Amino acid sequence: MSLQYSEYNETTPTPERLPPGTPDIVIARSVQPQSILLLAQQRFGLPGDSLIPFGHYKAKLNMAHVDTSARAARGKLVMVTAITPTPAGEGKTTTSVGLNDGFNCLGVQSSVCLREPSLGPCFGMKGGAAGGGRAQVIPMEDINLHFNGDFHAITTAHNLLASILDNHMHWGNEVGLDPRHVYWRRVMDLTDRSLRYMVSGLGGTAHGTPRETGFDITVASEIMAILCLADGLPDLRQRLGNIIVGRRPDMSPVTARDLGVEGALTVLLKEALLPNLVQSLEHNPVFIHGGPFANIAHGCNSVTATRAALALNDVVVTEAGFGADLGAEKFIDIKCRQTGLRPDAAVLVCTVRALKMQGGVSRKDLATPDLHSLRAGAVNLERHIRNLRRFGLVPVVCINRFPTDSDEELALIQSISAEWGVRAVTATHWAMGGEGATELAQAVLDQMDEGTPEVQLLYEDDIPLAEKIETIATRIYDAASVDFTPAAKRQLEEYEQLGFGHLPVCIAKTQYSFSADPSLRGAPSGHVLPVREVRLSAGAGFVVAVCGDIMTMPGLPRRPAALDISLDENDQVTGLA
Amino acid sequence: MSLQYSEYNETTPTPERLPPGTPDIVIARSVQPQSILLLAQQRFGLPGDSLIPFGHYKAKLNMAHVDTSARAARGKLVMVTAITPTPAGEGKTTTSVGLNDGFNCLGVQSSVCLREPSLGPCFGMKGGAAGGGRAQVIPMEDINLHFNGDFHAITTAHNLLASILDNHMHWGNEVGLDPRHVYWRRVMDLTDRSLRYMVSGLGGTAHGTPRETGFDITVASEIMAILCLADGLPDLRQRLGNIIVGRRPDMSPVTARDLGVEGALTVLLKEALLPNLVQSLEHNPVFIHGGPFANIAHGCNSVTATRAALALNDVVVTEAGFGADLGAEKFIDIKCRQTGLRPDAAVLVCTVRALKMQGGVSRKDLATPDLHSLRAGAVNLERHIRNLRRFGLVPVVCINRFPTDSDEELALIQSISAEWGVRAVTATHWAMGGEGATELAQAVLDQMDEGTPEVQLLYEDDIPLAEKIETIATRIYDAASVDFTPAAKRQLEEYEQLGFGHLPVCIAKTQYSFSADPSLRGAPSGHVLPVREVRLSAGAGFVVAVCGDIMTMPGLPRRPAALDISLDENDQVTGLA
Repeated sequence: MSLQYSEYNETTPTPERLPPGTPDIVIARSVQPQSILLLAQQRFGLPGDSLIPFGHYKAKLNMAHVDTSARAARGKLVMVTAITPTPAGEGKTTTSVGLNDGFNCLGVQSSVCLREPSLGPCFGMKGGAAGGGRAQVIPMEDINLHFNGDFHAITTAHNLLASILDNHMHWGNEVGLDPRHVYWRRVMDLTDRSLRYMVSGLGGTAHGTPRETGFDITVASEIMAILCLADGLPDLRQRLGNIIVGRRPDMSPVTARDLGVEGALTVLLKEALLPNLVQSLEHNPVFIHGGPFANIAHGCNSVTATRAALALNDVVVTEAGFGADLGAEKFIDIKCRQTGLRPDAAVLVCTVRALKMQGGVSRKDLATPDLHSLRAGAVNLERHIRNLRRFGLVPVVCINRFPTDSDEELALIQSISAEWGVRAVTATHWAMGGEGATELAQAVLDQMDEGTPEVQLLYEDDIPLAEKIETIATRIYDAASVDFTPAAKRQLEEYEQLGFGHLPVCIAKTQYSFSADPSLRGAPSGHVLPVREVRLSAGAGFVVAVCGDIMTMPGLPRRPAALDISLDENDQVTGLA
Repeated sequence: MSLQYSEYNETTPTPERLPPGTPDIVIARSVQPQSILLLAQQRFGLPGDSLIPFGHYKAKLNMAHVDTSARAARGKLVMVTAITPTPAGEGKTTTSVGLNDGFNCLGVQSSVCLREPSLGPCFGMKGGAAGGGRAQVIPMEDINLHFNGDFHAITTAHNLLASILDNHMHWGNEVGLDPRHVYWRRVMDLTDRSLRYMVSGLGGTAHGTPRETGFDITVASEIMAILCLADGLPDLRQRLGNIIVGRRPDMSPVTARDLGVEGALTVLLKEALLPNLVQSLEHNPVFIHGGPFANIAHGCNSVTATRAALALNDVVVTEAGFGADLGAEKFIDIKCRQTGLRPDAAVLVCTVRALKMQGGVSRKDLATPDLHSLRAGAVNLERHIRNLRRFGLVPVVCINRFPTDSDEELALIQSISAEWGVRAVTATHWAMGGEGATELAQAVLDQMDEGTPEVQLLYEDDIPLAEKIETIATRIYDAASVDFTPAAKRQLEEYEQLGFGHLPVCIAKTQYSFSADPSLRGAPSGHVLPVREVRLSAGAGFVVAVCGDIMTMPGLPRRPAALDISLDENDQVTGLA
């Protein structure tokens, strides 16, 4: 979510380069992008045939031209995470983009890896998503619309598997699927509540078998998670084949491989697996690739993009979804565990406003300096610092500055951070671009100069699944205990019997609290984490613990953003962000 | 549908350049495509920034760089159509590609415009569709997979309109839609019978309003027809706004414009509206753009592609869907009527084999010379010649040669054509490429040298809709009469009252016969055309007369092509065509 310039107070000195009230799309369009082929050549020494251009300013990178082998040189990986999100906005993507520009201002060869935005929210709630202010990625409209077709390819692959499945049952059901135990739904990259629950296959025997099913949004597809975790085409194919689409009457799993369709799915996804290269407003390289949900999936950009960026840069900035309790934990315990990647540094983004909300201030009062509430809300920051330290990381705290922040408020966050032995730096990349983030970039370099962190996974592969969930709940969320429903207990036992006990777990819970109750701000402890059900993502390679209601197909608001999106008289897109 | 090389008889001398049994995909891959930017520069003098590259061998053409105004020079338009299709295959697309290569062999600056293949049949029945043999378009895999994203954009736009519609009803239904009269379904670019009939909006009040609905395949979307008939962005927006999504209780129509969504739909389609440029195996320019159904829609490539090609070439070859009774009629009475375009020549494709099938020979006996059956089946060719003459066109008959054709059989078709005063030429582009079609190309040039045809629309705008249908039925299909159901009669009257009486009609009937009965081969006459219902495509700008069962969402066969599609050890696609 991009911060709005209108939230800047007019009495505060405004940066010269950014007139107040300028919408993101206007700023984005004021900069002429460089040829992406030229940029790749100049920055990375990559020849033109190593890129697959999509227009002049976007490209996919042919991985055959990038040495991602274990022996090759590899840059430092900086994970950007954040405090528990609030409606005040923290600006994690904006900070990732700004920090990368900051590194480049310092002369460090750096790229940033981000997730791709989904068309659903773009036409529903919020317009575009590619950073904000002077810390944006361009071409902004293209990134927010069809981009390079990855999500469309995932949608098609997901739905081809569904149609092959229904067709298999229609023609005799040779593998013996139990129609009552078909899990594989369909997906669409839109928000459409009417498709959540439906009965398909109506109209008579010529039109399939009636069954209850529905659609999720494409970012919730297991294939999205698979694409983002796959380490090359053979691994992609293997994972696609492992997808469990349903069960036989004896409850044995039926996979996509049993249906013989993993080859066709791989073909549909072969180009989507290649990372997308674009640029920031300051013409620094940005990889945007993949966008899995951060609740029922791990919420990180693709492994391919991270590997490509690490092979081509000295420093790579990347972003983990939601707050550090969910995003950073999954980044380390799922993505790093599966791939051997390890972060060399972590940046923990906060704002004065958001910490005041964590301390109980309502949104309308955020402009008023309030040291007391800030102090109260800072427990949230402290909990995240402690957690990151438990992973072996000493984070750098980034205070993403707003004009309404008082000097005393900024100083308070810095002194609290100092108590925890971590650096805290104010950054103004939103208004100033990379120049506003050089101090932050320098602090990250200084932190990395202190030595490579010994990053620890939170739990070992070989402990029981329930214990993995309990470890996360007690060590990261400060829960007193975990309450498994009888169904969840049965499912965990069954997954272990089926041979999936070694998988990591992915907690699907509200991002608005350390607890499962979104109204509990700050740093709640002693709560109980309720695990309602457990799902198996055998292709992605994790077990999902569902704690509360998780919406996998959002609905449109009363007035969707789509009604304001149009072309102006010059055929330029209006209404995006 | 591509012809199979295996149908060549081994005892027949085979062309040197094409070893027997070579699959299309192997031939396609044996040719290294030229850089599409270089090709556009060399052939058309177009600068690099006038193209939007998609990889190195595909591009979209920025129409701002092409003068399509009425004053500008414009090439001759050659419409390729065919006899009534049979399972023997006529090779219309292959002939279009080969004829274009033939023109270029003769030194004529020529391009061909084709429709885009759909992913649905590609993974279902038949593998790829981009010509065959040495008359193919490359890069073949890309064209058959996601190509440049047009169909995904259409799918997304169509489904965004559906979600906005359901959302509008969910939040109070301000425009007063009658939920029982919502016509707008959803689409998917796959074949999936289970989605034909469904009930959506189940699960309670938070999840929309339950209603009967379903999915069609994307090529059946009215937005596909709109994209292919739109003459620029303003016309596109206008047509999108005109789409009728349902009715109010008083039966007044509710349009996409009433829902306020035509701007967002236009944004989603702005790049999809630009024509795609690729190349033949002989590096001649090929435009592939849009692919509407040829039954419930008009079955032609986009107006944008045709206009762009005409502005850049001396000759443009284009293809009309199905046989000439459906494809050529709709090309002239819908596409030409709406745009002012007129064909300068027509090529009528036939094969000896297919004409023998029209004469009653079964598929297994087609290799046996049989002058008697050929003479009997040639009535089908004659009927199409007569029909094209009624439009003011003197067609050139192309006999797409198979090795099993005897000289006597070829001579018979030529003498029958001569009786009708039309040229008939044998062509071997499938095996020989452009060289095999130079005689055909020369015959078309000779025909055009005889003067510009005075192309006649079959009926005027201002006669009643029922009379338009009757005119097509009696003049083109040789029906004795049209039988309208009471519902169809009511609908026609209603559309006229609503002000749509001036629209052309689009007949949706079987492509396998002049009649509505697919088993009636040859040239049936005196039959009755049953019009079951009439639909209004107010955005596309035609009224659809549905004669018989029209499947708008195909099903997969027992063994879908998807199960044979995969990547080989070199990451090359196998199993496509």
